[in-house]
Formats: sequence, C-alpha cells, structure tokens
Amino acid sequence: MDKKIKVIIWNEFVHERENNALGDYIRTIYPDGIHRHLARALAAEDLQITTVTLQDEAQGLPPERLDDTDVLLWWGHCAHDQVEDTLAERIALRVFRGMGLIVLHSGHLSKPFRRLMGTPCRLRWREVGEKERVWGCATGHPIVQGVPESFVLPHSEMYGEPFDLPGDGQVITMSWYEGGNVFRSGMAFQRGSGRIFYFSPGHETYPIYHDPNVLTILGNAIRWATPTVIVPERLTPSPVSVEPIHTANPLASLDTSALHQ
Amino acid sequence: MDKKIKVIIWNEFVHERENNALGDYIRTIYPDGIHRHLARALAAEDLQITTVTLQDEAQGLPPERLDDTDVLLWWGHCAHDQVEDTLAERIALRVFRGMGLIVLHSGHLSKPFRRLMGTPCRLRWREVGEKERVWGCATGHPIVQGVPESFVLPHSEMYGEPFDLPGDGQVITMSWYEGGNVFRSGMAFQRGSGRIFYFSPGHETYPIYHDPNVLTILGNAIRWATPTVIVPERLTPSPVSVEPIHTANPLASLDTSALHQ
Amino acid sequence: MDKKIKVIIWNEFVHERENNALGDYIRTIYPDGIHRHLARALAAEDLQITTVTLQDEAQGLPPERLDDTDVLLWWGHCAHDQVEDTLAERIALRVFRGMGLIVLHSGHLSKPFRRLMGTPCRLRWREVGEKERVWGCATGHPIVQGVPESFVLPHSEMYGEPFDLPGDGQVITMSWYEGGNVFRSGMAFQRGSGRIFYFSPGHETYPIYHDPNVLTILGNAIRWATPTVIVPERLTPSPVSVEPIHTANPLASLDTSALHQ
Amino acid sequence: MDKKIKVIIWNEFVHERENNALGDYIRTIYPDGIHRHLARALAAEDLQITTVTLQDEAQGLPPERLDDTDVLLWWGHCAHDQVEDTLAERIALRVFRGMGLIVLHSGHLSKPFRRLMGTPCRLRWREVGEKERVWGCATGHPIVQGVPESFVLPHSEMYGEPFDLPGDGQVITMSWYEGGNVFRSGMAFQRGSGRIFYFSPGHETYPIYHDPNVLTILGNAIRWATPTVIVPERLTPSPVSVEPIHTANPLASLDTSALHQ
Repeated sequence: MDKKIKVIIWNEFVHERENNALGDYIRTIYPDGIHRHLARALAAEDLQITTVTLQDEAQGLPPERLDDTDVLLWWGHCAHDQVEDTLAERIALRVFRGMGLIVLHSGHLSKPFRRLMGTPCRLRWREVGEKERVWGCATGHPIVQGVPESFVLPHSEMYGEPFDLPGDGQVITMSWYEGGNVFRSGMAFQRGSGRIFYFSPGHETYPIYHDPNVLTILGNAIRWATPTVIVPERLTPSPVSVEPIHTANPLASLDTSALHQ
Repeated sequence: MDKKIKVIIWNEFVHERENNALGDYIRTIYPDGIHRHLARALAAEDLQITTVTLQDEAQGLPPERLDDTDVLLWWGHCAHDQVEDTLAERIALRVFRGMGLIVLHSGHLSKPFRRLMGTPCRLRWREVGEKERVWGCATGHPIVQGVPESFVLPHSEMYGEPFDLPGDGQVITMSWYEGGNVFRSGMAFQRGSGRIFYFSPGHETYPIYHDPNVLTILGNAIRWATPTVIVPERLTPSPVSVEPIHTANPLASLDTSALHQ
Repeated sequence: MDKKIKVIIWNEFVHERENNALGDYIRTIYPDGIHRHLARALAAEDLQITTVTLQDEAQGLPPERLDDTDVLLWWGHCAHDQVEDTLAERIALRVFRGMGLIVLHSGHLSKPFRRLMGTPCRLRWREVGEKERVWGCATGHPIVQGVPESFVLPHSEMYGEPFDLPGDGQVITMSWYEGGNVFRSGMAFQRGSGRIFYFSPGHETYPIYHDPNVLTILGNAIRWATPTVIVPERLTPSPVSVEPIHTANPLASLDTSALHQ
Repeated sequence: MDKKIKVIIWNEFVHERENNALGDYIRTIYPDGIHRHLARALAAEDLQITTVTLQDEAQGLPPERLDDTDVLLWWGHCAHDQVEDTLAERIALRVFRGMGLIVLHSGHLSKPFRRLMGTPCRLRWREVGEKERVWGCATGHPIVQGVPESFVLPHSEMYGEPFDLPGDGQVITMSWYEGGNVFRSGMAFQRGSGRIFYFSPGHETYPIYHDPNVLTILGNAIRWATPTVIVPERLTPSPVSVEPIHTANPLASLDTSALHQ
C-alpha cells in the first residue's frame, strides 16, 4: 500500500486544449491530455500515479508535493519558458537527492533537463510522418525488458544527431529513421542519487503513447528510476578535522569568515 | 603573433579591495588582485593574457569579447550571485562551441561551472591552514607534465569529498589533507567542443598561486584547453530528408507548425 | 528460498595454508581461510554463500557452477598466474551476461579483473601498518548505506594513486592514508549486463575483514551486484534485414562467406 | 623531419593473397593489400608510414619496432586467433604508455582491441551490399573535421547494435543502414595515456578505403591519436611514505615479503 511508487506526470497541457484544427486533432488521440492518457496507460498495482499541469498552483509542483514524489515524468513542448527557474532548480536538487526523472520527447529542451545535463540538448528534427525503428542497445538493461530487439513506430517525428549531451549517458535505445537519420533516443543518466531517463519517442499528433512497446519502456523506466533512498540535505562545512593537524594555522589570528559568506 | 592563445582571466575582485584587516592581508599576497597576479605569473610567449573583473562593463565579458576568447580562467568566491544568468549562459554556450574554461578554487559554486556541470558542485571545506598534498593521478596527461607525482602546499583550505559532480570527469589530480580528507582536486571535462578544467588549489590568504607546481598546472591547463576549432552556431531543423521517405505523411494536410514555435 | 542470491567466494587459498611464521600469523586472523571467514561474516537470510578455491576441480568454477552463480567474490594475491586464461574469459563473459563480481584488495591484478577492465590495474603500495581512512564519496549509493561518511582502519596496507583504470568507473569510496597517499578504493563498473565492484580494503595480516563497516560495504555490494536478468548467449549474424533494401548487391554472385569464418 | 608521426599499418594480409575468386576480386580493389593501399592513400608530409603484416618476423611488431611507433593502424579479419597473446599484451601496454591505436572494421574482434576494451566487442552484421550513411555526431571533434555532417557509402557491410563496448567511449560517428540498423561506427577511447579510435567503415570487397571522407577521417584520427608523451614504465612499490606515519606497525617483526612476490 504505502510501498507504492509515487509517480507524478507533469504536462504543460497547452496544445491539447487549443481551439483550433491542431487541438481538435490532438484530442482524437489524447482526449483529456497526454498526462491523463499516460496515467491510465501506465496504471499498475505498484504505482500511485498523479497528474499535474503547468496551470496548477505552483506550476503543479509545490515543494511539499515535489518532496513526496519518487518519479517525475515531464512533458513540455511550447511552454518551456514559462516554467520558473526556481522550479527547475528544485527539481534538479530533488533528483540529486534521489528522485527519478523521466523526460519525454520535446522535453529535451525543458528547463529541468537542460539544468541537469548542463548542455544545450539540441538535436536535428523533421516532422513528416516518417517511419522510426527503435533499437534496444543495452541488452539486459531493465528499461528494455519485454521489448523486442527492435520495433517500429509507423509515423514519428524525426529527432536526429548530433544530440548535445554530456559524455556519461548510457545508450539504452537508438533510433533509425526512414529519412536517413540516427539518434540516441533512450539515454540513462545518474546525477547524485537520482536516475534520469530521456526517451524521444512520443508526439502530440502521432499515437506513439498508444504503442505497447513504448509503454513497456516507460513503465520499466519508472521502476528503474525509483529511488532506493532519498538522501538528506547535505552539509558542507567540516570545521573539525577527523585526523590531528600538526601544522600551525598561519592565519589563526585573522578573521577570514567573510570569505565564506 | 596572431597565433597567440587569447586568455582572459576573470576575477570578481571583491576581497582584494576591501578596507579591512582581511583585505590588508590579502593585498600582501595579491597586491593588485588575483587576476593581475596570475596574468604576470602565467605570462608566456604563446599567450596573450587579458584580465577583466565583475566591475567592468557587461561584467567584463561583453559578447564580442567573449567571442574572441580562447581560454577563460574564472575566479569567484563571495559574489557568485551577482553574475548575471545570461552571462553564465553565454559562457556555457561559448564553451560548447569550443572555448576552454579553467575554474579556480571557490569557482566550484560559480554560475558558469554549475551551469556546465548540471550538478550542485558542493564539497566539504575547512579553513585552518592545514597541509595539502596534491597527487597527479593521470600520468602522462598534458596538465600534469613537469610536476612531480605529488607535491605539498604547506597551508591550504581543505576541500573534501563528497564532491557533487557528473560522472564523466577525468581525475587529473587528487588531494590529501593533513586533517584526514581526500578530494578530486583537478577534474577535466569535455562539453561539446570545449574543455573544462576545475582545479581546487588556490586561496585568497594562502600564497598558493605563488607555488611553481600550481602555476605549471594552470599553464598546462591553458594550453590543453585551447580550442582546435570553434564550431559555428548549429542548426536544428532538418526539413528535407537525406534518404527517400516512402511512408505517406498521415498529417500532410494538418498545420502542425505551432508545435515547433 | 530459491530466491536466495547465489554467492560464491573464490579464494586462491595459498598464504593461509603455509607452514611458516607468516602462515601461522595469518591463521590467527583467518583460521580456515579468508573465504570461509567471509562466508560466515556475510551470512544472511537472503544469501546462499558457497566457497571454492583454486585447488578445487576446474579451479573451483566449472562451467555449470559458474553458470549458476549470481555474485562472485574474488580473493587472489600470489597465485594470479595460476588461474587459467579460459577461466578468466568465462568469468568475464558471465559478468557480461549479468553476474555480479566483487574483487577484493590484491585482486586488482587478478586475471578476471584485468580482463574486464582492459587496463593494467597497477597502483602504488606500501605495507607498514599505517592508518587508512575510507570516505564514502557517492552519498546515497546502495553500497555505502549504513556506514558513516568516513571510517578508520587502524592498520592497513597502502594502495595509492595512480590507479590504472578505465574512465567509466564510479567512485564509491576514496581512501586517505597516514603516509600521505590517496586512492579510489571503492570503484563500481558496469560491463554489459553485469556489475563489478572493486574494494581495496582487505589484507591477510590485518584483521580488516573483521571490521563492521568493511563487512557492511561488502554485504551491500553483493545485493547491488545481484543480476536482475541473465541475458542469453547473443547472436551476431543478422542476414535478413528488417527494412527493405533497394540497393542491388554488387557482389551477389561472389561467394564472400570465407570472410566471415 | 624527425618530427614526423611514425605510423605503422598492420595487416593480417590473408584474403588479399588467396588464389580463388574472392582473392581475385579483392585484388581489383586492393592489388597489393589493404595496408599498402592505405599507406599510399594516407601519405602526407607529416607522416612516416610503414606497413607490416602477420607474416613478418615477430608478427610484424618486434618490441623495438612497436616501441618506436606513434600510431598503429590494425586490420584483421579471419586471422585474429593467430595473433600471439603476448603481442596483444605488448600493444595494450604501449597504448597505455601513449601510443595511438586505430582499429579498422573487423578489427573489433581483434585481440588488441578486445584486450583494451575488456568487453566481447560483438555486434550484428549482414553483408548484402546495402547503403550506409555515416553521421558525424561529435561536431567540432578533430576526427570529423573536413567531412560533411553525413555522407554515404553506396555499398557496405552492415555492422549494427548492440555493440558490446565499455561505457566511456565517445561517439564520434553513428551509421544508418538501408536495412534498418544503426551503429556507433566511430568510437574514441582513452586508455592510460593512449588514444584509441575504432572505425567500422571498411571492407575487403567494397572500395570503402577509396572513399575520400573515410580517408579524411582516418587521416584525422592518426593526428588525433598521436601521443604528446610516452610515459616511462611505471613503478608500483612506494615503501617510504611522503608524510610521517605515527602509527606503530603491529607486524614490524613479521616478514610479510612473501605476500608481495
């Protein structure tokens, strides 16, 4: 019961609500938002899934809520700039303390992801409905359990290399595109005690989050990213040494505390 | 002549100017600022060194100046918060395009370094004038050429583990402290086309930047971090595929451009 | 019951059996071998621990036994050369398929570890009974749960940097030595589906494997290294493409099978 | 003059000499061996290129020759097993001391490469003459200077993921195959002081080493892998401490030298 993994799916929730042809089309696939669709599609006995949106109080993640989250899924596309810097910073620190973070598709440019990667996270892209083939490159990794060595998404937005990432990501999946591009489409990172998974397959207007292999990967990623421990806020001063110091302090009589304020 | 490496040493330049006992003491070691001392101590035929400070126009690094810099050295301690976010972002992008960045001592908490690492960059610290011994761990690395396998700093501020860093840094030096601590004191990173070196030895009130081994390491790091190329601003859209796409676009008649704005 | 983690502790078992003063002394600490001592000290409900030695049939690890092992602990010191290359190769492949491997102290030069690291794995060493202080650098990592931020081993053999390792290890612990050295004493690696932990604290003539913090770390490491899956032997040929190939094979009439034998 | 980079191209030189239809065909592309073709195609003012083969004395690399090499290129396919383990070990150590190593195509299974990677280095493969498209993923990296963001090899052998590699390689190029596969086709590693580049494009029966982009990449890789320093054979004992040890050695009267033989 209280052992359930506390999952929050965050959605900027903009395009799905628009009163235009695009919004109409998106609602044929995600009638009440990508977040609610994913919550239903990923529902399981061991998960306690909640959804929040950018429009909610404190942009959906007030401190007490964020501090009660095990794994956060992040969908954003056109409203990255509206996310407050302080929220991105709080998320990054929560990840560093142990929370899992799963960044979806266009979230590669979201503030929390870029904050945690430290890189621009740019990529090449093209939206013409071409075929994507996803390869599991990390055989045996928990995130690709239960999916075939490769599988097809009949229509996808192309996300291609070069992908601006730091060097310590583990390549979990790579994607092949009909139009000739390749991409590290599933990347796992460790930052402090927290695990991060970026997964590019996903879109507003292609029903990619209805694909069973994609859902298996996201479900696996949630379990993989679940913290084993949330570390407390750490201390940094260590004024008393643990071994005896024989060297006399040449500045013992000088007040240098101003250096450390 | 025009082949010289263009080095800028940035200093927040606060403590060295203070009218108090601490400022007086610092000026016995660095009479006109750490930046000017380093510029003199690192002067060499192949380097064109300039110094700038937080007090200068555009905080010392207007775009045209930053865009003409090969290697940037960064000293900051008490004024990290005064550095503009946009400057930190411009520095990070310039590093990504190829510029070298050398982060000194308390710069571990500076905005440019934390921005590039994506981690909190915290560490344990203690200032009691204890002995530090620096070990070159990456034998043969250009940064430790000309320094002994280990050397002593008679008085140093302790910077100790745990040090919050991403996983892909190369350990160039590690430090031993009399008081029982250990630290990855010299860490090399690659971010995009740029190289970053963090080096913890250095202080306002200990004459560490007068130590010949420390200066050798900093000089080596400048050459190591010099860009071989500055990559142009990159493009991200790739609307025309490089291979023929046989799949029909199911959304050819739908205007999805709003997704990409 | 059958969910227990199958642990094998391998010992070359040479020094503990010698009929001389050194052997006599070692037996005051490890009366019937380091392997049997560790088996008792690490005994727990969730572990099914077996011990084997170099003197056993097939050097203790016939294929069917190795293929039934979840986590292998390895102690070797003077008899590394006697381990058959084929055994080291089988162990490396089993690790790649998912088995955990915990390499103890002088095992840094063992064939299985060097085979898996691909590096010489040399280090500096000194045996004068000096004090070692072990620091947990990866706060929140499962391997250091339940141990203090640092702890002391009153007498230890110094193992110091530089340590010849590949670049993708995670620093779990670092050690400080009274004599001025530092060392990455606990290093975690992933190779294929398997996890590897190297831990340097340990010795024949100092009672380090009686230290509760050391035992906590080894016990944690066993659970951390337990496979979630053992991947099957992998295939490499892929003669039938998963996407249609329109390019005519210019060598369709040439028998090139000899290239792949 | 004596500043030229000393390059050795090693070839097992088997298929090019065979008296059969396959050999006849290969000789239409590489009349006197892949090694001699590459030596001509890569010839440049700053390179002193020599070729050796498996059939030469000491398999082409007696110690004095290997110890005089800056960068070694390795072609092998069917004769990997004939390479002596001691030669692979000598090469690995020379790399660790600083020599560059460039491993070509089927050399992924060669003894020196597998020895240095520590992994099985397997991959998926198919030889039907399909199209390969190579993407430069590390914009600005010296190895991809002068080549377009992507380029085509009209006919190639497919080498596909999963590719069994350690986690610290830098992805320099990735390949797209007409038949639906993807591959990290250009991977850079650092081992000790030496640099390693694996590049999969290349084949006996497709004229891939006549492709100007491929040759540009190989030429770039040679310069990139050129050592800045060859480190001397390292010492490991460190019997005299660099800091005073106050702890009495409890085993001062016991001869433990047998532990270190």
